[in-house]
Amino acid sequence: MAHLNDNYLKLKAGYLFPEIGRRVKAFTDANPEAAKRLIRCGIGDVTEPLPPAVIAALHAAVDEMASRTTFKGYGPEQGYEWLRAAIAQNDFRAHGLDVADDEIFVSDGSKCDCGAILDILGDQNRLAISDPVYPVYVDTNVMAGHTGEADESGAYAGITYLPCTAQNGFIPEPPQGKVDVIYLCSPNNPTGAAATRPQLEAWVKYALANQAIILFDAAYEAYITEPGIPHSIYEIPGARECAIEFRSFSKNGGFTGTRCAFTVVPKTLLASTAKGERKPLHPLWSRRMTTKFNGVSYIVQRAAAALYTPEGKAQVQALIEHYLGNARVLVAGAKAAGLSVFGGVNAPYIWVGAPAAFTSWQAFDKILHEANVVITPGSGFGSKGEGYFRVSAFNSRANAEEVARRIQALKW
Amino acid sequence: MAHLNDNYLKLKAGYLFPEIGRRVKAFTDANPEAAKRLIRCGIGDVTEPLPPAVIAALHAAVDEMASRTTFKGYGPEQGYEWLRAAIAQNDFRAHGLDVADDEIFVSDGSKCDCGAILDILGDQNRLAISDPVYPVYVDTNVMAGHTGEADESGAYAGITYLPCTAQNGFIPEPPQGKVDVIYLCSPNNPTGAAATRPQLEAWVKYALANQAIILFDAAYEAYITEPGIPHSIYEIPGARECAIEFRSFSKNGGFTGTRCAFTVVPKTLLASTAKGERKPLHPLWSRRMTTKFNGVSYIVQRAAAALYTPEGKAQVQALIEHYLGNARVLVAGAKAAGLSVFGGVNAPYIWVGAPAAFTSWQAFDKILHEANVVITPGSGFGSKGEGYFRVSAFNSRANAEEVARRIQALKW
Repeated sequence: MAHLNDNYLKLKAGYLFPEIGRRVKAFTDANPEAAKRLIRCGIGDVTEPLPPAVIAALHAAVDEMASRTTFKGYGPEQGYEWLRAAIAQNDFRAHGLDVADDEIFVSDGSKCDCGAILDILGDQNRLAISDPVYPVYVDTNVMAGHTGEADESGAYAGITYLPCTAQNGFIPEPPQGKVDVIYLCSPNNPTGAAATRPQLEAWVKYALANQAIILFDAAYEAYITEPGIPHSIYEIPGARECAIEFRSFSKNGGFTGTRCAFTVVPKTLLASTAKGERKPLHPLWSRRMTTKFNGVSYIVQRAAAALYTPEGKAQVQALIEHYLGNARVLVAGAKAAGLSVFGGVNAPYIWVGAPAAFTSWQAFDKILHEANVVITPGSGFGSKGEGYFRVSAFNSRANAEEVARRIQALKW
Repeated sequence: MAHLNDNYLKLKAGYLFPEIGRRVKAFTDANPEAAKRLIRCGIGDVTEPLPPAVIAALHAAVDEMASRTTFKGYGPEQGYEWLRAAIAQNDFRAHGLDVADDEIFVSDGSKCDCGAILDILGDQNRLAISDPVYPVYVDTNVMAGHTGEADESGAYAGITYLPCTAQNGFIPEPPQGKVDVIYLCSPNNPTGAAATRPQLEAWVKYALANQAIILFDAAYEAYITEPGIPHSIYEIPGARECAIEFRSFSKNGGFTGTRCAFTVVPKTLLASTAKGERKPLHPLWSRRMTTKFNGVSYIVQRAAAALYTPEGKAQVQALIEHYLGNARVLVAGAKAAGLSVFGGVNAPYIWVGAPAAFTSWQAFDKILHEANVVITPGSGFGSKGEGYFRVSAFNSRANAEEVARRIQALKW
């Protein structure tokens, strides 16, 4: 008799964004006039077209696929060498960081990698995860059987939650007790907070002292504007011995629908066998990727490489400045409305405290019904997100300005 | 202290194809003249360019990504509705098979899906896997901790191996004992054998009687030429209650470097919870794909949809006929050389028995050194593949003819 994976039955009813979609659809179906003025600032999805350098690279790569002499079949599962080299050189070595080409693993998304990384880690690891947090970190661990059941607040037994609150500037400190695997996301989704160098130094120190591993999600690295904020965990001495870094082209190159990302697994990163012998994780990840993955589409890898050309870099920079300009408009609007506002400086997300009488979902419903704007309820990211909502800056400037106006006009 | 997944340490040294690559490199480095006449019939990778309908669709989709009004960000993780509908209609309903659009899950590869399917199945399932077999079925189960250690022949404890031999026409019968999850691949990689309708009926009967699940890999479906050979497991009554089918665009549309595939999970397929309650797997797979995957690149999905247009279908058919023409040439050449030859009729692979004195790797080395042709040693697919080698028909016609000549000229 075939058995299913019972751990899936522990998962809470819906992933956050399907529930948002359901409520938006119910509202727009019932209010076709309001639907016409709806502005979506919910899911963190880019809105601007791919940079011209990427479009040109895609067309050129498609043409290669049309000719027998330039056609590409299976490529290296870990990514083409020219892309791995461009990434390692431009994102790391150019900034003085020691990352080798073959420590870069190209994939079709950071979401995929964040889940897949659990494949090579033991089931006995004790987990520490921020609250609020990108739901994928938690859900993939539930699926893998690393937790017990969820309580009424949605918190799963067996996870050490790290509260991110206004009091700690939404960046958690290392816990008192011992944990083995730590998820950190900076700049943060959903709060928009970015960890300072001393904050990351404290985490690396903790990880080294406890032989723990930091899973560092830097998908929003390109949005860092303040000097001194680390762009990579590898800026912190010792991080090559304790950290894996996830990066994505989704939010800098606008690849959310094109699909390309990468993960850095330093060869100096060790983990323990059941018998206590410490071995490098790099060969395990390499084996995982070659056995359970078949590489990213050739044409998409060519597109990603174009982001590292001089034109590509300039075009990405213009995209980032556009979205950060939106963020400034939204921050100003929410502040003018008297709301407490965080983020939006080193990240494309604004984290807003709802007036005290409102839960996150009540704020969501009010903003949807009265302002016809879709935001993301903070409680969807964890219990400590309750009372907050996230506004995405991924939009046109005109929409961002209109959203700022409508938020100011709301009567709470 | 962070732990690694000890199950990875059970894996045998190398995945088959890296070892082939190593031997070929050593030979070509040492013999630059012979390297110039090397012909690769090893890895099953297509050689002909993408069909013109696909190229046109790719260019059009790239242009859509260049404009704000037609740009696509995140799509549905399970695939765009227009692609799921085209697949369900053309590959199933047009042949009288009951498969709904939302039972199709689009992915970036069957290799990925074959590994990922284990996520939703319990760890207590008893496995049955063909021998020889596509190594990914075995390796992903080793990684997931579903096996013990390997013995000297490379067989892992805890797997029921189903011998595929010349005696049973390389199609295994159901075992006497009970198993819960069965891997079947038809047309078969590596043997080229295709299961008949009575053979598949026996498997479906077994699966229904034992509440087992068949994981049916039909990646080579397009190569079936003999009438009466089922193209889908769903041609067998009852299969919707016991089977998941994997399909790929790699070998029909030539997408090995473009990356698109799909998996069919019928809503009528149930599996047992730990407590013995039977529940549908469809919502688990849907949850798996939405949480651990972010969909296939939009432009690649447009490319896949082009395969279902009238022009796309005709161009795919021409590609298949080209490769099957190569297969006929290779079969004839190997037979003329006095070797025992199987496959090549309903599959792009020729399965050849080496002369009795030769192991698979000895045959590999001889053919590499003396004919300067790369084949795949049968023992790389499992112990019952020992003494055989696989010749891929993915090549130009001229190369296939030259390989046939060289194989005939070999003195064993």
